[in-house]
Amino acid sequence: MDDHRSEARHQSFSRRQFGVAAGSVAGAAALVPAVAGPAAAGPAVTAPAAERSVAAPAHAPQAPQAPRSTADWETCLAVARALLVVDEHNKPLVPGYLKILDAGLPRTGTGGRKKILVVGAGPAGLLAAWLLKRAGHRVTLIEANGNRVGGRIKTFRTGGHEGAAQAFADPKQYAEAGAMRIPGSHPLVMDLIARFGLEKRPFHLIDVDGEGKPVNRAWLHVNGVRERRADYARAPRRVNRSFGVPEKYWDTPSAAILKAALDPVRDEFSTVGPDGKRVDKPLPERVEGWARVIQRFGDWSMFRFLTEEAGLDERTIDLVGTLENLTSRLPLSFIHSFISQSLISPDTAFWELAGGTAVLPDALLAEVRDVLRLDRRATRIEYWHSGREGDTGREGDTAHVRARGPHVWIDTVSEGRDGKVVREQFTGDLAVVTVPFSGLRQVQVRPLMSYGKRRAVAELHYDSATKVLLEFARRWWELDEAEWKRELDAVRPGLYEAYRKGAAPADGSLLGAHPDVPDGHISDAQRTHYAASYWASRDQPEAADIVGGGSIADNSNRFLINPSHPVAGSRGGVVLASYSWADDASRWDSFDDDARYPHALRGLQQVYGQRVEVFYTGAGRTQSWLRDPYAYGEASVLLPGQHTELLAAIRAQEGPLVFAGDHTSVKPSWIEGALESGVRAALEAHTADRP
Amino acid sequence: MDDHRSEARHQSFSRRQFGVAAGSVAGAAALVPAVAGPAAAGPAVTAPAAERSVAAPAHAPQAPQAPRSTADWETCLAVARALLVVDEHNKPLVPGYLKILDAGLPRTGTGGRKKILVVGAGPAGLLAAWLLKRAGHRVTLIEANGNRVGGRIKTFRTGGHEGAAQAFADPKQYAEAGAMRIPGSHPLVMDLIARFGLEKRPFHLIDVDGEGKPVNRAWLHVNGVRERRADYARAPRRVNRSFGVPEKYWDTPSAAILKAALDPVRDEFSTVGPDGKRVDKPLPERVEGWARVIQRFGDWSMFRFLTEEAGLDERTIDLVGTLENLTSRLPLSFIHSFISQSLISPDTAFWELAGGTAVLPDALLAEVRDVLRLDRRATRIEYWHSGREGDTGREGDTAHVRARGPHVWIDTVSEGRDGKVVREQFTGDLAVVTVPFSGLRQVQVRPLMSYGKRRAVAELHYDSATKVLLEFARRWWELDEAEWKRELDAVRPGLYEAYRKGAAPADGSLLGAHPDVPDGHISDAQRTHYAASYWASRDQPEAADIVGGGSIADNSNRFLINPSHPVAGSRGGVVLASYSWADDASRWDSFDDDARYPHALRGLQQVYGQRVEVFYTGAGRTQSWLRDPYAYGEASVLLPGQHTELLAAIRAQEGPLVFAGDHTSVKPSWIEGALESGVRAALEAHTADRP
Repeated sequence: MDDHRSEARHQSFSRRQFGVAAGSVAGAAALVPAVAGPAAAGPAVTAPAAERSVAAPAHAPQAPQAPRSTADWETCLAVARALLVVDEHNKPLVPGYLKILDAGLPRTGTGGRKKILVVGAGPAGLLAAWLLKRAGHRVTLIEANGNRVGGRIKTFRTGGHEGAAQAFADPKQYAEAGAMRIPGSHPLVMDLIARFGLEKRPFHLIDVDGEGKPVNRAWLHVNGVRERRADYARAPRRVNRSFGVPEKYWDTPSAAILKAALDPVRDEFSTVGPDGKRVDKPLPERVEGWARVIQRFGDWSMFRFLTEEAGLDERTIDLVGTLENLTSRLPLSFIHSFISQSLISPDTAFWELAGGTAVLPDALLAEVRDVLRLDRRATRIEYWHSGREGDTGREGDTAHVRARGPHVWIDTVSEGRDGKVVREQFTGDLAVVTVPFSGLRQVQVRPLMSYGKRRAVAELHYDSATKVLLEFARRWWELDEAEWKRELDAVRPGLYEAYRKGAAPADGSLLGAHPDVPDGHISDAQRTHYAASYWASRDQPEAADIVGGGSIADNSNRFLINPSHPVAGSRGGVVLASYSWADDASRWDSFDDDARYPHALRGLQQVYGQRVEVFYTGAGRTQSWLRDPYAYGEASVLLPGQHTELLAAIRAQEGPLVFAGDHTSVKPSWIEGALESGVRAALEAHTADRP
Repeated sequence: MDDHRSEARHQSFSRRQFGVAAGSVAGAAALVPAVAGPAAAGPAVTAPAAERSVAAPAHAPQAPQAPRSTADWETCLAVARALLVVDEHNKPLVPGYLKILDAGLPRTGTGGRKKILVVGAGPAGLLAAWLLKRAGHRVTLIEANGNRVGGRIKTFRTGGHEGAAQAFADPKQYAEAGAMRIPGSHPLVMDLIARFGLEKRPFHLIDVDGEGKPVNRAWLHVNGVRERRADYARAPRRVNRSFGVPEKYWDTPSAAILKAALDPVRDEFSTVGPDGKRVDKPLPERVEGWARVIQRFGDWSMFRFLTEEAGLDERTIDLVGTLENLTSRLPLSFIHSFISQSLISPDTAFWELAGGTAVLPDALLAEVRDVLRLDRRATRIEYWHSGREGDTGREGDTAHVRARGPHVWIDTVSEGRDGKVVREQFTGDLAVVTVPFSGLRQVQVRPLMSYGKRRAVAELHYDSATKVLLEFARRWWELDEAEWKRELDAVRPGLYEAYRKGAAPADGSLLGAHPDVPDGHISDAQRTHYAASYWASRDQPEAADIVGGGSIADNSNRFLINPSHPVAGSRGGVVLASYSWADDASRWDSFDDDARYPHALRGLQQVYGQRVEVFYTGAGRTQSWLRDPYAYGEASVLLPGQHTELLAAIRAQEGPLVFAGDHTSVKPSWIEGALESGVRAALEAHTADRP
C-alpha cells in the first residue's frame, strides 16, 4: 500500500519532469541555470491519466506524412533537438559545452558546494567528475572495475594505468577492445584530444597504398565469390548476381542502392549542393526536417523501411544487409541505423589515438585519480528529495527526511575477484549515475523512480558486439607477392608455390611456422581445433597488398579490419579478425578461447588465403561487450519506437539523481555522446540547489 | 573462381530444392517416398534471376488484404501447412507420424540400408536415430556434450544418465533448466510419454488450492502495486492506472485487452462456438485462414501489430507487455508471439513428468545408447552428391567423387573440458543434422550449401532465455499465516511479528536462519551481496498460500514460478525465482553465481515478502541458454519476415544432408516441434536412395 501511494505522488513529479524534458530535452542542460533541474517546477498534475500517451492517443490524426507514428510532434521535435544538440530555441549547445571544457563550469547560478557521487568511470563519468571537481564540489567517483577506468574505451595493451600484463606475444603490440575510430566531426572529443596533447593519426576506414592514397583493395568474400572492393564498386554484377538480385540491380553497387533508398529521407534535413555533396539545411529547418523523419519513421525497423518504403526485395536486402552491415540489425530502429549510416561513410574522416584509445581515459584519469574508488559496484541506490516523502519502508530510515545531510545513499560491493567480497556505502547530496541501463536494471533504486524512467531502464535495448583479435608476426596484408615468396620460402623452400596451388598441408602443421613467430603461445588445444576445422581450397587469392582498411565476408567473421598504422619497433600486427554485432556476435561468445581463435583464423583465411597461418603467433584477444560484467552490451541500440517513447525519460532527473552516459545522448556507442552527456550532467548537478 | 562456378551450378540445385519445398514444405516428409528428397528432380533452372524473390517482386499487387507482405501466396500456404503439419493436399501428417512411432518406418520405398550420421542428441536427434536404427540402418549419433543427451531438455538433478553430482542441498530435489511444461495438445510427445510408461501429472500454470482447484492467488507486483492475480482479473483498475492507461481501459484486464486485439486474427482460422470457446475451422479453410494471417502479418513485429493494427497506446502496450509477457519480444515476429499466445493460455492443459523432463531423453537414450558418441562436437562437414561436382578445392579430395563409399565426412573435436582436445572424423552415406543454426553458423560446410540455406543459417534469430532457480527448506508459498507463525517463531520467538511489521533486521543476518536449513551452502560472498542489495519495506504481504502457479513482477525477476508438486520425502522445494527472455535474460547473465542468487532472492522477496529468506538454503542453479556452448539460445524466435523468407530453406535437404531440430518446425522451443522434425527427417533419410 505504501508503495502505491508513493507511486501516485510520484506521477506528479514525473509529469513535471517530463514537461521540462519534452519541451526542451537539451534544455535541462542549457546554460541558463534558471530553467535547469528539478528546481524549475511547473504546475503539478496529479492524475496519471494526464500523461502523454493519453493526451496524444495513437491513431489520432497527425501530420499527413505520419499516419502511423505513436508520438506527437513536440516529442519528435525534442528528439530532433537532442540529436542535433540544440536547446529549445534551436540554439546549438556545443559551443557552450566547449567553453566549459576550456574554462570550467559557470561560476554563476551554482547551487553551492555539494558532495557529489559519480557512479561509473567511463568517459561520461570521468568528464563529469573532472568538471565538478574543478568547480569546487566534493566529488567521489565510483567504478565497478577493479583495475581500470574508461568503460567501453578499452585497449588491450601492456601496462597502461590498469597495469595490464602483456596483451600479445610482442609486448609492444596493442589493439582495441572497444572504441577504435573517432569521427573528426565530433567536436567535444576532438577538443579533448587537442587539450590533452594526444597524438592522433588517420584511421583508414578504406585501405590505402604505401603512399597513403585510398585504394579500396580489401576483399569482399560472399557467396563463394571474392573480389576487391574497388572492383566491386566498378563492376558489381558478379557479386550482385551471386545474391540473385533482380536484373535492374545487377549493375548497381550495394552502397548506391542503399543511398538511393535513404536519400529521400536525407532530403528532409539536407540538400545536395552543386558539387554533389550534401549540405545541412540551416538550423531551424534542420530541426524540423529531422523531426519529420522521426515522426514518420520513429516506429519503424530498418527491415520495414527497406521493404515497405524502399520497395526492396529479399535478395536485394540480403545484398545490402551483408555489404553495408545492416543484416544483424534489421529488426532494430530505423532511426538508429539511419544515423549510423550517415556517420560511418567513406566521406567521414576518422582518427585514432597513438598508443590506443585508452590514452584518452588515461588523461582524464590523471585529473580525477584522487577522487576515484575502483572495485566498487553499485548494488542499491536510495534517495530522498524535498518533493517527496521518503518511502524506504522502514521506520528507522525516516531519519533521512531532513533538510541537511546526505540525500543519496549508494551501497556497493567489491566484486572480490581476487579476494573477499566487501560492502561499502557512499553518501552524497547528489549523484551522477552513468551506469548503462542494462546494468541499472539490476540495481535496486528506492523509492521507485518515475514511471517513465522505470520503463526506460527495463526496456532500453542493448545490443551485442564481439571482437576477436589475432596477432601475427608480420603485417601480411601489407605484403606483395615478392615479399610473400621471400617470407614463405624462408619457412621452407617451395612453400610459396605449394600455397599458391592449394597444395600445402591442411593439417595445421604450418600454423605459426614462420621463424619469427615466438614459441609458446599456440596451445595444443588450439592446434587440434584448427586441424578439425581446416579450410583448404584451390582458390588461393593474390596478396592483399594494402595498408589498413577492412574486408567484408558472409562467413561468421563478417567484418575483418586491419590496423591503420604499424606499432613502432614491431614487424607484426594485430588484426581485428572478426567484428560482429547482434546475433552474429552471440555466435562467437560460446567458444572457449582455444576454439575461438582458430575459428577466427580459419574465417580470415577464407578471405585472405591459407598462407596467413604461418605468421599466427597464437596470441588472440576477444571482447564480448554483452558478456562484460559491467557493460551488458555494446551500447543502447534502440528498438522501433524507443526514441520517441523513452528518450525524454532516459535523461530526466529523479530528484537528486542526474543521469549521464552515451545512452542518454542520441549518439550511443560514440565517445562524443558520452562527453555531451558528461557536460550536460555536470551542469545539472552544478546548478541544482543543494537539496 | 572455383567457388563461384560451383555456386552457379548450385543455384540450379537450390532452385530445384526450393520448388519441392515451397510447393509442399511438409511434402518432403510425406509418406509417399517417390516425391521425397533430392531424387525428385524437376527441370533445372540455371539463371539465378529465376529465383523466387524476383518472380514475386515486393510491392507487386497481391491479395487486397496484404499490400505489404514480401511473400507470395504459395509461400504463405506452405508456412501455414508446416504450422498445421499437413501435406500439400492439406492432409494431416501426424497420424502417419504416430504410426511410425508405433510400427517403425515403412518397409517399402526404402533406398536400402545406409550408414547414417545423426548430429546432435536432443529430442529430434534421439528420435531420428532410434527410428533409423529400428529400420535397420547403421546409425552413429554424435553429441557435443560430454555427459548428457536431451539438448534443451535438461533437469538439474542428482544422478540421472548424466551421473550428475548433487544439484541442491537436498539430494532429492530437482528442477528444470529447460523444457518444463508439456501441452496436452501435442500428440507426438504425449504418445512417447505413454509409450515409455512415464508418469505424468498436471503442471499448474495457474496456482491451485489444497484440493487442486485453480484459485489464481499468485501475485502481480508492478509499479509498486501488489495484487492477487484473481483480484486483478476481477478489478483491474488499480494496477491498470499504475501504468497510466487511458480511462477506457481502466477496468479491462490485460488478458482481455490482448484477446480483443488478437480475436480478429483468430477469426481467420477459427470460429467462436455457442459455448464461447474457439473451434478451429475444418481443414482446407483452416490452412487458408492461417495463410491469410501469414500473408497479412508475416512481415510485422508484435510492436507494429499492437500499435498499428490494434491501435493501442504506449501505456496500454506497457501494461499488456508486462502482464502477458510480450515486452521483451515486441520487436520480434508477430506470428511467433501470436502462436505462443494461442498455446500458453489458461485453457491449455499442461503436464510435467515425475522425476523431471529428463526422464524422456533417459527413455530415448536407452534405445540408442549403443550408437551414441558423447563429447564429439562437429566442426566441419564435407559432403558430396551426384548432382554436383565436389568442390573441396583440394586435388586429393576428388577421390570423394565416386559412386560408392561415404558421401558425408564430419570432423569433430572432443572439447576436452576434462583433458586433451581430440579430433575425430566420422563418415556416412547421409547425415541428419539437428544442430541449431546458431551453432551451425560456426561449422564449416563444404561445398557451400544452397543460397537459401546459407542465409537461413546466418540470419535465423535465436533468443535468450535465462532461469534462476533457488532452493528453500520449506515450500513457503504453500504456508498459511498460522504455519508461517509456527515456522518463524521456531527460528526466534517474536520473529513472525517483526517480519509482519517490517521490523526484522535487513542486514542479511536471517538468511537461511531456519533450523531445517542445512549448513554449508550459503557462502560469505552470497551474504555480502545480499546485504548490499537488501530490500526492506513496511509493505510485507500476507501468506501466498498457494500450490504451483506463478507470479509476475516488473522487477528484473519478471516471472516467478512455483513447483506444481512436492518432491517425495522432502519438505523443501525449488522455486524458479526468475524466468526471463531476450533483453531481460541478458541482464542476469553477467553476474557471478554468488551475486546472482542473492539478487534473485531479493526480487522474490519484493513479491512474496522479506521473510522467505529464512528458508533459503544457499543452493541456486542457473541456466542461460544463450550462453550454453551448444545451444546458443533458447530457441529460434523468428524476426519479422523470417517465416516466409527462411522456413522452406531451413528444412530443405542439401544433397545427403537432412535437417531436423525444433528450428525446422513451426513450433520452435517445444519438444513436439523437435519430435515432428525427427520423424520427418528419419523418413527423408530412410527413403532417400543410397547416394
